[in-house]
Amino acid sequence: MKIYKANILHTPSPDHFDAYQGGYIVVDDAGVVQGVYEALPVEMADMPVVDFGERLLIPAMNDMHVHAPQYANMGIAMDMELIPWLNTYTFPEEEKFADEQYAKAVYDAFVTELYRQGTMRAAVFATTHVHATQLLAKTFDERGMGALIGLVGMDRNSPEGLKNTTQSWKDDTQSLMQYLSHCPLVNPIITPRFFPSCTPEMLQTMGEMAQAYASPVQSHLSENKKEIQWVRELEPQATCYGDAYNRYGLFGQTPTLMAHCCYSDGEELQLLRDHGVCVVHCPTSNCNLASGIAPIRKFLQAGVRVALGSDIAGGHHLNIFRVMQYAVQMSKLQYALTDGKYPFLTLSEVFYMATKAGGAFFGKVGSLRRGMILMHLL
Amino acid sequence: MKIYKANILHTPSPDHFDAYQGGYIVVDDAGVVQGVYEALPVEMADMPVVDFGERLLIPAMNDMHVHAPQYANMGIAMDMELIPWLNTYTFPEEEKFADEQYAKAVYDAFVTELYRQGTMRAAVFATTHVHATQLLAKTFDERGMGALIGLVGMDRNSPEGLKNTTQSWKDDTQSLMQYLSHCPLVNPIITPRFFPSCTPEMLQTMGEMAQAYASPVQSHLSENKKEIQWVRELEPQATCYGDAYNRYGLFGQTPTLMAHCCYSDGEELQLLRDHGVCVVHCPTSNCNLASGIAPIRKFLQAGVRVALGSDIAGGHHLNIFRVMQYAVQMSKLQYALTDGKYPFLTLSEVFYMATKAGGAFFGKVGSLRRGMILMHLL
Repeated sequence: MKIYKANILHTPSPDHFDAYQGGYIVVDDAGVVQGVYEALPVEMADMPVVDFGERLLIPAMNDMHVHAPQYANMGIAMDMELIPWLNTYTFPEEEKFADEQYAKAVYDAFVTELYRQGTMRAAVFATTHVHATQLLAKTFDERGMGALIGLVGMDRNSPEGLKNTTQSWKDDTQSLMQYLSHCPLVNPIITPRFFPSCTPEMLQTMGEMAQAYASPVQSHLSENKKEIQWVRELEPQATCYGDAYNRYGLFGQTPTLMAHCCYSDGEELQLLRDHGVCVVHCPTSNCNLASGIAPIRKFLQAGVRVALGSDIAGGHHLNIFRVMQYAVQMSKLQYALTDGKYPFLTLSEVFYMATKAGGAFFGKVGSLRRGMILMHLL
Repeated sequence: MKIYKANILHTPSPDHFDAYQGGYIVVDDAGVVQGVYEALPVEMADMPVVDFGERLLIPAMNDMHVHAPQYANMGIAMDMELIPWLNTYTFPEEEKFADEQYAKAVYDAFVTELYRQGTMRAAVFATTHVHATQLLAKTFDERGMGALIGLVGMDRNSPEGLKNTTQSWKDDTQSLMQYLSHCPLVNPIITPRFFPSCTPEMLQTMGEMAQAYASPVQSHLSENKKEIQWVRELEPQATCYGDAYNRYGLFGQTPTLMAHCCYSDGEELQLLRDHGVCVVHCPTSNCNLASGIAPIRKFLQAGVRVALGSDIAGGHHLNIFRVMQYAVQMSKLQYALTDGKYPFLTLSEVFYMATKAGGAFFGKVGSLRRGMILMHLL
């Protein structure tokens, strides 16, 4: 058992912070919180205390949508909207991950920076390259950091150098799953790049794999108006973009993360709620790529789950505290644009999104109540 | 004469950067640029060169709207819209500047931080306190930094502790002008806090003073919808908020800075252009105070001048590079919200706003062409 003294701050629920100035947190040998106290209980009075002084003790950040192979592009090349930006800057960068040495260098720098910014867990898009993706998983594992790692599937509307096939994606994903069976904190996540990148055959196989292995799913949803129009053309039978994923079993049949949702409304909003799909709000990216303002207050009012993502290199920074800031700021612009119809987000709400809401995908993490994991002592 | 070698970057016009990788800038003994070169002219080949290596040499930033006495509030207290925010957080902080010791401490920290962030000139709101305002001017002067310093006028709808009167404002401003006659880089600027804070009598006197002393003018315009409605009630004869200032000779009769302009359109936009009023875009502040998105592309298309401001403590940071970033991002949101009607701002456009557009208020500064001032060698 260990006792830590610090200024302790967390959000057990979105509506308020629990704060302990000079408080105590008691953690058992497995890293599980046994209690948080204003003053140390008398029976613990004689036990050694690790005193962090005036430092703040908070849950680690969870980055629920991030493209590790775009780390080298972070903060540059932001003069285009989504689709031309992908084709001009992003896909050529991702093609470099066929080279394992390049992958190792970038992934090492990426995970180092993620940790430096206070993020201990992430839902990550890798590329279509299985060896590089295993390297990425290994890097998280070695640092004791949690991750959901997605070997990306993309077999249409993509450059030849990045494309895989339904069969190669399936083989590579199974090989990744095998590899990850020895990594307790790193798990696979089924990752169609986005609807326009995957043939119906690939999507069908992905949905089946997700259910067969009870694997979570992540992708992009309703980020950009031109993208939505494209999906409408590719899948005319679907009632909305979300339904296009849903028709292939990729929309809440297993725990699902959908990034962006700038234009999710009506039927799609209901589908998000009814299927328990978690929206990953990426406000920095939505600014940088001229995507739009996601209606987060509306989602919360409807009971849709919302977490946060840096979405580099759409986002320009890995720091989730900055993402929180932009989340509040964009909700304030929405407030102004709707004459106050949607109250803007509060600090405790965005802190909750960054900690407990995202943490739910990694087990009992994201707040500091009894029974939650403070740290993984392996 | 001095020769500097560095990577030289500036925007002589908004549409492009002039870049010299490993270029040379030649400056005379008064600090005036004599030339910028890719390679050093032969006749200078034997002259000593100060080599900055790979460093970037750019014009200093100009912060064209900033509240020095709100420095201690920077980055906090952002849970309200403009009017309640002023009454709850801002006015009580400004009242503290009756205490010269407090003023000295804050103003010293403010100017130090401004310089640290790359800003060498600013259009500043002080408070209604003449001694503290002289201290602020002195601080700029001692550092060799440029400033337009406004002793704020406010005689209605304001807390008793901050109010001045037309007569006391006039006396104090004349005393400040006298004081500043010995400071070549620091000049006075006529500063009605904003229309709702000043009686017609005060506004009338301010307009007369501006013209009598050929002093520039700065204030706030159309920042928040509730504020605009308030001005409409206070000055029903005015055709728009801008016209309310104009009726008192405070809208371009002398060089004029108007911060925000989130809702300036139609007649007000024409008035801005026709009177050569410079809009000071403060995008961080407009996010933080839920004010809205200023139609900057529309201003530029109409030929309205636009500079940038940090507007702390509405803005959360003094760094003008961050303000540039937000200016681009908010223009991208406007692009998304208008389905691409207004092309988003480019990097060279916002760099120009931060350097040459604002610099025009301080003389020949803001770019690095021959005849411009690189540094003030006093």
